[in-house]
Amino acid sequence: MKVGIVGMGLIGGSMAIDLKRKHFADEIIGVEKDGVNAEAAIKIGLADRLASLEEAAAECDILILAVPVGAAVKMLPQVLDIYAKEGKDCRKIVIDVCSVKEQMVRIVHYHPMRSHYVSTHPMAGTEYSGPWAAMPGLFDGRACILCNSEDSDSRAVGLVEKLYDTLNMRIIHMNASNHDVHTAYVSHISHVTSFALALTVLDKEKDERHIFDLASGGFSSTVRLAKSNSDMWVPILSQNRNNILQVIDTYIEKMKAFRDAIDAYDEDAIRQLIQDANRIKRIIR
Amino acid sequence: MKVGIVGMGLIGGSMAIDLKRKHFADEIIGVEKDGVNAEAAIKIGLADRLASLEEAAAECDILILAVPVGAAVKMLPQVLDIYAKEGKDCRKIVIDVCSVKEQMVRIVHYHPMRSHYVSTHPMAGTEYSGPWAAMPGLFDGRACILCNSEDSDSRAVGLVEKLYDTLNMRIIHMNASNHDVHTAYVSHISHVTSFALALTVLDKEKDERHIFDLASGGFSSTVRLAKSNSDMWVPILSQNRNNILQVIDTYIEKMKAFRDAIDAYDEDAIRQLIQDANRIKRIIR
Repeated sequence: MKVGIVGMGLIGGSMAIDLKRKHFADEIIGVEKDGVNAEAAIKIGLADRLASLEEAAAECDILILAVPVGAAVKMLPQVLDIYAKEGKDCRKIVIDVCSVKEQMVRIVHYHPMRSHYVSTHPMAGTEYSGPWAAMPGLFDGRACILCNSEDSDSRAVGLVEKLYDTLNMRIIHMNASNHDVHTAYVSHISHVTSFALALTVLDKEKDERHIFDLASGGFSSTVRLAKSNSDMWVPILSQNRNNILQVIDTYIEKMKAFRDAIDAYDEDAIRQLIQDANRIKRIIR
Repeated sequence: MKVGIVGMGLIGGSMAIDLKRKHFADEIIGVEKDGVNAEAAIKIGLADRLASLEEAAAECDILILAVPVGAAVKMLPQVLDIYAKEGKDCRKIVIDVCSVKEQMVRIVHYHPMRSHYVSTHPMAGTEYSGPWAAMPGLFDGRACILCNSEDSDSRAVGLVEKLYDTLNMRIIHMNASNHDVHTAYVSHISHVTSFALALTVLDKEKDERHIFDLASGGFSSTVRLAKSNSDMWVPILSQNRNNILQVIDTYIEKMKAFRDAIDAYDEDAIRQLIQDANRIKRIIR
């Protein structure tokens, strides 16, 4: 099977490694507009060869859009337009791997080739980006969400499930709008809180050596996501705007509850807040 | 050398393991008011035997107060009172390992035996607590802050430096009030942001299975500190109140900056905030 991957970064590159290694893909065709990344993808061996988006869409059995959601939302209709030229006999499939789904499914909802698109979100990643960040086993044991798969051709869904099965992911079905609410809570807000933490500390700790000296493991793990790439996160925060605003508002309320309890020397209230937060133990190892 | 450790938890227990293993201590005498933890400390082998605070203070060359700061601030004058009974010939030393220092040094500033106390903060830990959480190598390569050591006897400071050298820690000298400002920024605020994140997610995600399914590595590492023990954190947040309130206020401002930029669809502003936050890369690996 020919697999096209648009965007040879952390996610695209890591999929390339495992899909080839596990013999799901016979050939990986990379699409990468950044010249340095394109060269790296070939040099590292993530892609067998490079092509344009149009070439890859016309040639590949499955095309994976592994670019930031702002770019993916423009490419998806272009790819389905290319499929439309093949007409009824087209058996090609396009998927995206973005972490915001509602706008993606809305933009092609009435497209005549809609059933050739499967909306997916493999929930894996690191705070690093680019082809050099790609690694084998990134998806191993993690959850992958398939959204609105009733709007996709069942053969297409079957093949995409096989693809994620190859990556050893647990598949969950969910509608796009619920997906965007849930990811706002368990993924997007963590990034905003980390960014804000980094900004706070950088703002106040003028002497950077102190941050380094005093940062224990706790700080490092809490602030880790603040290294995340703006090219990826600007469109996520824009596209999932309404959900994220709601979560940020709740979050600011919780911070203020801590602030008020500390301000009032109310140790019972502080204790209650911490013990309520401790309930996360039941859920996260 | 006889080393007494008051509080056989994560920190006290881990110090016990390495001080014995590396032959700094010939005997470890444990002081532990919780019956279950006391029994565990003996069973696991963290302490050679148990004693009361008074017995341990009278008998040990070094006594380590490894209890929450609310308890430590009461015990420290009691221990110095016991030393005072021995008079001028007393060569005993007491240290604490709390993460808030100003109140500790203030409470004994005028005590006649003040020079027998060395104020220390070994910056290591995990989100777990109790004797079962103790582990070898916990302090390895981390920073240890010695506060106001000019108020301690130089022989005492030398011995305490040797103790932390045995634990393979980097020693930094700082005054207590600067220490409390810096730790508010690089340690205490991370805990408050994690607690608030856990509360936010628990509040909204009624279906806990979704948290588990959708929580990627990013969320888990950001929320990890929310498992931290309230017995330890209530007194820290109380005692470092003024510094923490300032940091929380700055932090809420940063969250609001994100909120406003997202609300206004201002992608340039979001990008700028993220790129400013990315500067943390230069400091934290």
